[in-house]
Amino acid sequence: MTDLAARFDLERGTIAGGTLTERRLSQLRGAFADTRALDDRLSRGDDPLVYTVSTVEHGSGEGDQHVGLGVLYPGRIGREYFLTRGHRHRRAEAAEVYIGLRGAGKMILQSSSGTSVIDLVAESTVYVPGHTDHRTVNTGAEPLVYLGIYPAWAGHDYGSLETQNFSVVVVDHGGAPRVLDRRDFLASFGIHH
Amino acid sequence: MTDLAARFDLERGTIAGGTLTERRLSQLRGAFADTRALDDRLSRGDDPLVYTVSTVEHGSGEGDQHVGLGVLYPGRIGREYFLTRGHRHRRAEAAEVYIGLRGAGKMILQSSSGTSVIDLVAESTVYVPGHTDHRTVNTGAEPLVYLGIYPAWAGHDYGSLETQNFSVVVVDHGGAPRVLDRRDFLASFGIHH
Repeated sequence: MTDLAARFDLERGTIAGGTLTERRLSQLRGAFADTRALDDRLSRGDDPLVYTVSTVEHGSGEGDQHVGLGVLYPGRIGREYFLTRGHRHRRAEAAEVYIGLRGAGKMILQSSSGTSVIDLVAESTVYVPGHTDHRTVNTGAEPLVYLGIYPAWAGHDYGSLETQNFSVVVVDHGGAPRVLDRRDFLASFGIHH
Repeated sequence: MTDLAARFDLERGTIAGGTLTERRLSQLRGAFADTRALDDRLSRGDDPLVYTVSTVEHGSGEGDQHVGLGVLYPGRIGREYFLTRGHRHRRAEAAEVYIGLRGAGKMILQSSSGTSVIDLVAESTVYVPGHTDHRTVNTGAEPLVYLGIYPAWAGHDYGSLETQNFSVVVVDHGGAPRVLDRRDFLASFGIHH
């Protein structure tokens, strides 16, 4: 059992007792649409840290909850903003509450009933219902820092998104974020699926 | 279904789409130790708002979560700081994650294995395991604002605390909080149970 109290640090993006996962650009192949821009950057030896998640697991019972502190750095690959790989829960009925603490971004929520793009900003919550793929996107100039609270039994499933990405992308358009259909965006630089 | 996104306001203590519950001093008889100080205050026609909770209920499935924004105002009854009534969950195995957003206080956690008093301050989490009575106390000079995230099926049980209060009190001692055994504190002004 970890300590019941945990301070978090919005500047450093850490939470006491958390287990840190780091995701660099080279681990996010397939998540970004513009694979040429991604390869160009990596070929220059530039493999930036895109996001970290620090997870605190207090218990594993039916009523327990896990806490994740996410830090998604600002940046773009081509026109597409830095993003998390995205997942749905292994036990898909598990919902998750996101709490924006610092910065500004969006969440892409995708389920059988469609795709939504919702602001995730400091001093707000975003509710991710069960059976919903979710990805976080940083559309701002500073780190996007947020908490995610989910049932201990939720688990993570990345597999279905490996083969079929989210249907939309969030891209820079003259300094402001714009949501585009992924296929339209790919077609705009000559990639057709 | 409520909106998936909800802004909250740390100054006003509100969250978009929340259902507001208000608790005034007159509704908290039995929670405070110093019943004479409580009665004196009410008899002067002074029935202050002690706390509010705004609850957002996104769903009621097995994997759904509820979100509560709590605002506990600064103040004291005698030496005892303003507090919430406290509860355990009706389905006692449900844990709850508290997230401090503003101000400084403490949480009293009480279970069959004992009683803990843990700081709840801005930029920290407090984990309330299942089977644990929990109460929030504002030991500071400004409103204590926090989120609580709990399974939709948790429910609230206030009954057991009606007849048997928490075993400790958090009181002012020369300008700083001190935790005392409730029976010792009651005995100090001539009440013996």
